[in-house]
Amino acid sequence: MKARIHITLKEGVLDPQGKAIAHALGNLGFSGVEQVRQGKYIEIELAETDEARARASLEAMCQRLLANTVIETYAIDIA
Amino acid sequence: MKARIHITLKEGVLDPQGKAIAHALGNLGFSGVEQVRQGKYIEIELAETDEARARASLEAMCQRLLANTVIETYAIDIA
Repeated sequence: MKARIHITLKEGVLDPQGKAIAHALGNLGFSGVEQVRQGKYIEIELAETDEARARASLEAMCQRLLANTVIETYAIDIA
Repeated sequence: MKARIHITLKEGVLDPQGKAIAHALGNLGFSGVEQVRQGKYIEIELAETDEARARASLEAMCQRLLANTVIETYAIDIA
């Protein structure tokens, strides 16, 4: 079972990496870039075949290792 | 117009960051993690309202700045 996890900074948390990308795009001549936010994207291949158990396990992985829940949120998609 | 870009390592390119995550998950007691690949996720807010022009512009951004096309591929979703 394959899962896709998006980890993004919470709304209102400053994203210096996103700002740096927006600035660099401006320097390259791309106009009309209003906002850039960068997050992480993780693909996990699990041996588990039960979707509910896989989701519970992925939730725990996000809470304990993958996301810093003070400043980040995560979204889990199971394919 | 909001675009979501996923940048991932091409198949066959070694992903040490993904391997480190898989190893750490194993150490935390999560079993059944077969493979982990980490990529980047970028949200870009554009002033452009024409989808075709926005897509062309985002393609150029990926080619010139966001992705290292030697080892990475990118996917653009426009919402």
